[in-house]
Amino acid sequence: ALTVTASAQPVTPALQGEAAGLAQEALQDELAYELVTSLTTEVGPRLAGTEAEARARAWAVARLRELGFSNVREEPFELPVWERGLEQASIVSPFPQPLVISALGGSAATGPEGITGEVVAFPSLAALEQADPAAVRGKIVFIDEVMTRTQDGSGYTVATAKRRQAAYVTQAKGGLAALIRSVGTSSHRFAHTGQMRRVTEVAEAEGVPAAALSAPDADQLQRILSGGESVRIHLLLTPEQRPAGKSANVIAEIPGRERPQEIVLVGAHIDSWDLGTGAVDDGAGVGIVVAAAKRVLDALPEGPRRTVRVVLFGAEEVGLVGAKAYASRHADALANHVIASESDFGAGRIWRFETRVRADRVDAAQALGAVVRQLGAAPGGNTATGGPDMKYLREAGVPVVGLKQNGWDYFDLHHTPNDTLDKIDPEDLAHNVAAWVSFIFLAANSGEYYR
Amino acid sequence: ALTVTASAQPVTPALQGEAAGLAQEALQDELAYELVTSLTTEVGPRLAGTEAEARARAWAVARLRELGFSNVREEPFELPVWERGLEQASIVSPFPQPLVISALGGSAATGPEGITGEVVAFPSLAALEQADPAAVRGKIVFIDEVMTRTQDGSGYTVATAKRRQAAYVTQAKGGLAALIRSVGTSSHRFAHTGQMRRVTEVAEAEGVPAAALSAPDADQLQRILSGGESVRIHLLLTPEQRPAGKSANVIAEIPGRERPQEIVLVGAHIDSWDLGTGAVDDGAGVGIVVAAAKRVLDALPEGPRRTVRVVLFGAEEVGLVGAKAYASRHADALANHVIASESDFGAGRIWRFETRVRADRVDAAQALGAVVRQLGAAPGGNTATGGPDMKYLREAGVPVVGLKQNGWDYFDLHHTPNDTLDKIDPEDLAHNVAAWVSFIFLAANSGEYYR
Ligand SMILES: [Zn+2]
Ligand SMILES: [Zn+2]
Ligand SMILES: [Zn+2]
Ligand SMILES: [Zn+2]
Repeated sequence: ALTVTASAQPVTPALQGEAAGLAQEALQDELAYELVTSLTTEVGPRLAGTEAEARARAWAVARLRELGFSNVREEPFELPVWERGLEQASIVSPFPQPLVISALGGSAATGPEGITGEVVAFPSLAALEQADPAAVRGKIVFIDEVMTRTQDGSGYTVATAKRRQAAYVTQAKGGLAALIRSVGTSSHRFAHTGQMRRVTEVAEAEGVPAAALSAPDADQLQRILSGGESVRIHLLLTPEQRPAGKSANVIAEIPGRERPQEIVLVGAHIDSWDLGTGAVDDGAGVGIVVAAAKRVLDALPEGPRRTVRVVLFGAEEVGLVGAKAYASRHADALANHVIASESDFGAGRIWRFETRVRADRVDAAQALGAVVRQLGAAPGGNTATGGPDMKYLREAGVPVVGLKQNGWDYFDLHHTPNDTLDKIDPEDLAHNVAAWVSFIFLAANSGEYYR
Repeated sequence: ALTVTASAQPVTPALQGEAAGLAQEALQDELAYELVTSLTTEVGPRLAGTEAEARARAWAVARLRELGFSNVREEPFELPVWERGLEQASIVSPFPQPLVISALGGSAATGPEGITGEVVAFPSLAALEQADPAAVRGKIVFIDEVMTRTQDGSGYTVATAKRRQAAYVTQAKGGLAALIRSVGTSSHRFAHTGQMRRVTEVAEAEGVPAAALSAPDADQLQRILSGGESVRIHLLLTPEQRPAGKSANVIAEIPGRERPQEIVLVGAHIDSWDLGTGAVDDGAGVGIVVAAAKRVLDALPEGPRRTVRVVLFGAEEVGLVGAKAYASRHADALANHVIASESDFGAGRIWRFETRVRADRVDAAQALGAVVRQLGAAPGGNTATGGPDMKYLREAGVPVVGLKQNGWDYFDLHHTPNDTLDKIDPEDLAHNVAAWVSFIFLAANSGEYYR
């Protein structure tokens, strides 16, 4: 098997020089920005399992073929589909006023009349979990936990626990509905959506209707509650669920000339949340990996040694459904996946090159980031995730790297209506393309293994 | 009459020293921020003529009495009331997707089915005005004009022409509806509302349904149009109009001890648009003038020489209705209004002290800004407006000054859902109170006239 032939053909100075040359040219890249412009304009929002996501795939297939990639295809799968309906909330008493909210992905509906109830607030999901059910029964739960702004996105994992669990914990304690302070770091009046439980998880309970309040609205509610007032809220959510919709991953390749069975996988996700146009999440990633792969394609008319496979995953947002479908469909070939990575953290510049490879292959894997480091990135540790859609590959033993983007501002926009094209800096995007082209070129032209 | 006794009792060094002392103390002011917090939290949005505006008045009357002002009262008037309903827009073809909009104040309704039509774009209102009606007939007009960011707000007057006129010009040319790029300077995905024609103006025509697109949505529409595509949009607006609602100005005084009939008028407006909570527009102004007047009240147990009158105008946003009612009701006393000014430009620091007084009284009027200049403001010209609600007083010959705030960021927030408390910097607010307390103290304790 491939795993025992490690160390052959390392990254030579000559290869690295070629990669550096491609990166220099890519700093002038315009294709990535053109692609994200086209996708977010001509398709716009593209929720998993909807007709809009299908249009996004048709766009991708057409663009990838036009760019000259090989074996461009859709690999379909099914999934349950949730679509947003009306979403309204207001303080009924003591100080009547509307609130800005967004239903959480997968939320139950309130029914057409909505729900009215008294608010009971908790500082965290853990506090709700520890609460006496008597304090929650018949009430609307409000979890008021602030997300920490970080460069590496580590605040997000902590912050999403309440989004994932609030509806179910509230239901178990007899509550009516759940409200959370928006995950995200912006003080602008946008509510942040995002999936509760993955659609691929077995549903034990539907959960209560659940929504996020924008940060100023969470502040407002907290201010009123801290005055000792009893607050009643009316909530109306009318999302719809369909048991089975269609999605697919879109795949395109640059066939390898020497070892075509060996795969360097680079990914992004084609779906987006429905509120914005999915520019930073993840139109940017689509633009970056496609533009970078296109530069490798053009630089090597006879192809790289290994196959470069671009995977634009479907249905990432609702629970990595495309990622799971890919891993399952390609289970027999995963041993031939030499290395993999996804671009799905916005459009900020890359500041760290991380790996997750066999302990004694870290230096070899870091060699794939040599030019990324020349572009300003630091070497990172060996605990990379590789990106959300790398989960099942990673768990199957596929080595991954992370070209980690600066996420300082990412969660100001992510999963809100404000995720639109104008938030992307074309020069930062080109910087990403430069980093990715160097990584792809080195991974596809060296002969090393990392597992 | 007062106008002939100019030059008596100027601003003495002693008076100026006292004013400077009050200003120094006011830099620690917490009352203004407490007031704007209370108003925006306990009332929230307070659209002219609605029950919410009545609650804001009740709040103001209670707070002003509690603070110890005299003659606290409401002076009621009537006005037509417009209330927002549903507002939805989407591109139907070629690239179906929702758009973020906000109905303009006073807009006609589309009917429950909405309107669908092809878009015809113009770079400005002037271009629409010059257009052949044949190009507009049966279409949805889009005016894509960008507002200039300026410190002094001068970009706003230019930008609002399209907001005020688009619906009527479109109707006269046989168009179906009017869309404008939001007035405002933010690239965040908020649409900007604001009044079309003043509710006090005689209606010659109702105008077509009219709404503003957020800046990213205007960008999106422009991008698609500039690709040469024919764009069809569906628009749904269901506002309601009532012929007569109630509003009022709220008035509070510090009676003058020597010349009680002479009025130093300081204003702000109590109403707000319905989308945000009216924090920078104009909760800030309410906090600033009330807190500053309270400091004069506390500093002078026997009262200032002249009467200080705080006027919190109702129904400013829909056409200066409260301002007109005030000028009409107090017409006989306007000759006794020595000087007047309003705080209605957000919560930024004051950078200029302007006047509009008799030409040979400019130096005397600038003397009222001596401490404001010590706080960092420059002397401005003699063309001050004094603030929107000063219009009818100014036209009646009342001298005005402007404590001009830095409006660089004001139109990022103004008239959008994002006008919320968290956008106010408490230190900047206190800086405003310091400037205002010095102006009020000097104006109420000198014996000069400015007309
Ligand atoms: Zn993503
Ligand atoms: Zn996402
Ligand atoms: Zn105002
Ligand atoms: Zn206003």
